[in-house]
Amino acid sequence: MTLTLDFTNMMAGALPNGAGITEAQWREAAEAFRLAHRQVMGQQAQLGFLHLPTNEELLRASVAVAQDTRGRFDDVLLLGIGGSALGPIALRTALCAPQWNALTLEQRSGNPRLHVLDNVDPATIAATLARLDLSRTRVLVVSKSGGTVETMAQYLIVREALAQAVGEEQARAHLVFVTDPEVGSLRRIARAEGITTLDIPANVGGRFSVFSPVGVLPAAIMGIDVRALLGGAAHVTLLAEGEDVARNLPGAFAVLQWLSDTQHGRRIQVLMPYADPLRDLALWFVQLWAESLGKILPDGTSVGPTPLPALGATDQHSQVQLFMEGPQDKTVTFIAVRGRTDEGRIPARHADIPELGYLGGHTLGELIDIEQRATAGALAARGRFNATLHIDAIDAWHLGALMQTFELATAYAGALYGVDAFNQPGVELGKQFAYAMLGRAGSDAARTEWDALPKPDPRWRL
Amino acid sequence: MTLTLDFTNMMAGALPNGAGITEAQWREAAEAFRLAHRQVMGQQAQLGFLHLPTNEELLRASVAVAQDTRGRFDDVLLLGIGGSALGPIALRTALCAPQWNALTLEQRSGNPRLHVLDNVDPATIAATLARLDLSRTRVLVVSKSGGTVETMAQYLIVREALAQAVGEEQARAHLVFVTDPEVGSLRRIARAEGITTLDIPANVGGRFSVFSPVGVLPAAIMGIDVRALLGGAAHVTLLAEGEDVARNLPGAFAVLQWLSDTQHGRRIQVLMPYADPLRDLALWFVQLWAESLGKILPDGTSVGPTPLPALGATDQHSQVQLFMEGPQDKTVTFIAVRGRTDEGRIPARHADIPELGYLGGHTLGELIDIEQRATAGALAARGRFNATLHIDAIDAWHLGALMQTFELATAYAGALYGVDAFNQPGVELGKQFAYAMLGRAGSDAARTEWDALPKPDPRWRL
Repeated sequence: MTLTLDFTNMMAGALPNGAGITEAQWREAAEAFRLAHRQVMGQQAQLGFLHLPTNEELLRASVAVAQDTRGRFDDVLLLGIGGSALGPIALRTALCAPQWNALTLEQRSGNPRLHVLDNVDPATIAATLARLDLSRTRVLVVSKSGGTVETMAQYLIVREALAQAVGEEQARAHLVFVTDPEVGSLRRIARAEGITTLDIPANVGGRFSVFSPVGVLPAAIMGIDVRALLGGAAHVTLLAEGEDVARNLPGAFAVLQWLSDTQHGRRIQVLMPYADPLRDLALWFVQLWAESLGKILPDGTSVGPTPLPALGATDQHSQVQLFMEGPQDKTVTFIAVRGRTDEGRIPARHADIPELGYLGGHTLGELIDIEQRATAGALAARGRFNATLHIDAIDAWHLGALMQTFELATAYAGALYGVDAFNQPGVELGKQFAYAMLGRAGSDAARTEWDALPKPDPRWRL
Repeated sequence: MTLTLDFTNMMAGALPNGAGITEAQWREAAEAFRLAHRQVMGQQAQLGFLHLPTNEELLRASVAVAQDTRGRFDDVLLLGIGGSALGPIALRTALCAPQWNALTLEQRSGNPRLHVLDNVDPATIAATLARLDLSRTRVLVVSKSGGTVETMAQYLIVREALAQAVGEEQARAHLVFVTDPEVGSLRRIARAEGITTLDIPANVGGRFSVFSPVGVLPAAIMGIDVRALLGGAAHVTLLAEGEDVARNLPGAFAVLQWLSDTQHGRRIQVLMPYADPLRDLALWFVQLWAESLGKILPDGTSVGPTPLPALGATDQHSQVQLFMEGPQDKTVTFIAVRGRTDEGRIPARHADIPELGYLGGHTLGELIDIEQRATAGALAARGRFNATLHIDAIDAWHLGALMQTFELATAYAGALYGVDAFNQPGVELGKQFAYAMLGRAGSDAARTEWDALPKPDPRWRL
């Protein structure tokens, strides 16, 4: 059970034409990291995520609800968006069998399906409700604030459908809320109606909540080893206690990306696992990195790298051409899985055809591993910054370790960039405009601002 | 049946602080577009994609194989990667019911499931083969070159499994190849063994092939109205005949993105449909735009915008913070669907709670539409370039129109940037390195270059 980061291909010396981070830059950054580490450790009001992996009480609460769910319910419908959805989806894709929801109960070892509604597309919700037997469906409503407009709209529709299917009284027993311990509409409804509710601690933000019941409850319901998941996260939390960047893996990741952006113009930062099960982990990372670091500084300057999701080997036939030959504005971080080289033996056939003959006797595990190394080497040969996170296996422990690595790296990167990694003020204006159009009370100022925006100009339409 | 592009929010006047494309830039670009249009029209050897929507012979060939498939087979397994997979996946997500492969035969109106293997992850292939009844599975092997290493490896494994399940003789009747009319290994095998094969015309590249049997065959098998699909594409092809950018929608899209990048530093170009079914269309666009435009010019300069996929409203809780407050380096093109405002009525409930009470009586269709407009307005208010493609409905005609719009725009953008939009030389080095490690004949030079690359440096590992 290890997680290692090889960043040779980000450093001067390995890359041609003087490209790469110099040893002097790395040494200076080590000093900047010391300060960043201290600053992060001072933000205790935001650091709830560091304590989640060892919070036995929260874990037991999730496990109890999971036990109450399995067997009684065939389907779990999760209503949530952003941090409330991306973590559970990433865990399902990584740790459950492929196409989980299409498997039989036996193939799922008796565990329920998990459906996540993370949008307000009317067609998706209608199709989902049409397919579910609501009398056998548990509904999780997940929102840190307890008032997210998309999730509240989903909740109103699903609760009505549930009440029609099983009656008002019984509907309450199907619902589980996951929200702030004290404030918000969900908490208020839960208290008034006695609905089972699990806590997201007040000092844990939505995108840092995967090790709270937000991620742990659905994981436990699907039969994922949640103790191993939290164990991997706890391991990384310990790794990151020291302020020496050369011994702090999440810190090293943060420093490398920050240096690449601010000193070398590498402002687009690709996460590219070479493994289908990690496809949605990249999307979870995108939210974490983008929403935490894309900020306006007090002096009005905009900062923040742009995370870009990719998947190997698939994207060798899509984005890699751009990574190889496009502007020198990217870093690529691969995730490579060791120890699959005996999986997926390729039979010998068509030995007379050069394009097929040489493949016989190799394995897919070898092929995907070789393709990752070949792509990393080719990028380096062309001066393109890249690094590789190696994991031993795709299991709960390593997922926990990876996710906590990225959460810690995000906190450090916030300090390095000089931004508050834990807020998201930029989305407020769009929310206010939507409230104004929906006629929500108190949105008059937004309505005035909205009405003053330039209207569509017929000259600029075709 | 219309497709319109509103780009007010990309133009000076609509954006604050002097941001935006000026009328003078737009007029100059119109002249550049005339030249680009002529140049593209001169590249007939690459423009096969323009003629696909009206190629009756190819359409009939796909429809015949589809008819031979439906009823006889319950599952279709497509082996392909890049352009061979992204188009079929985008069409399935857009035009079939949600979670198509999890539906019953009746819910699918008797149409087969479609499984796409677009990677060489050993776990995915093993899980897929374990679930399929191969005696009722049609296998499509899709590769323009007929020798794509990932697809050949998949083919060898699947063919062996098929032969074991139904016998060597019968296995041939399950296979359909889709490849170049003359050259490549698949064509050679097809000829030797009498395997049914559909053509990708020689002048159609993989990422421009969705209206060839690459996309049309799987679409027809799933019961998609392929005549309407091609009709939408043909409509846009006609729209784009003129060299006046003010009347050429694909041209306008290309010019706007090119100007935004080269004159305004907007080098990251987001495609953000507000509709779950269009989620995978954005991934198809990413390949098209990235692989076509990310190139090294003859003088050694690297060019090419970076496409970024997003999904509304979901990404308002992920990437939009970065789009709003991060560096002024992005354009956002929304896709908005008209006419869904009566879908997904939200029931009145919890009228006493301000965060929920105002939602009752609205619809999800209204909500998603309002959120798109609110986000566009908020971005514009903060000087962020954005445009909106409006479509009337998510149906085969509009998908055809959208996809042909992006294909034409890509060809025009290639001419504007001065790159060959139809090749992908940058992926060759990684391929050669992989061949060398796999021991393929003729890869000695690559082996030498590979061996000369710097090795992982233990100083840069933790």
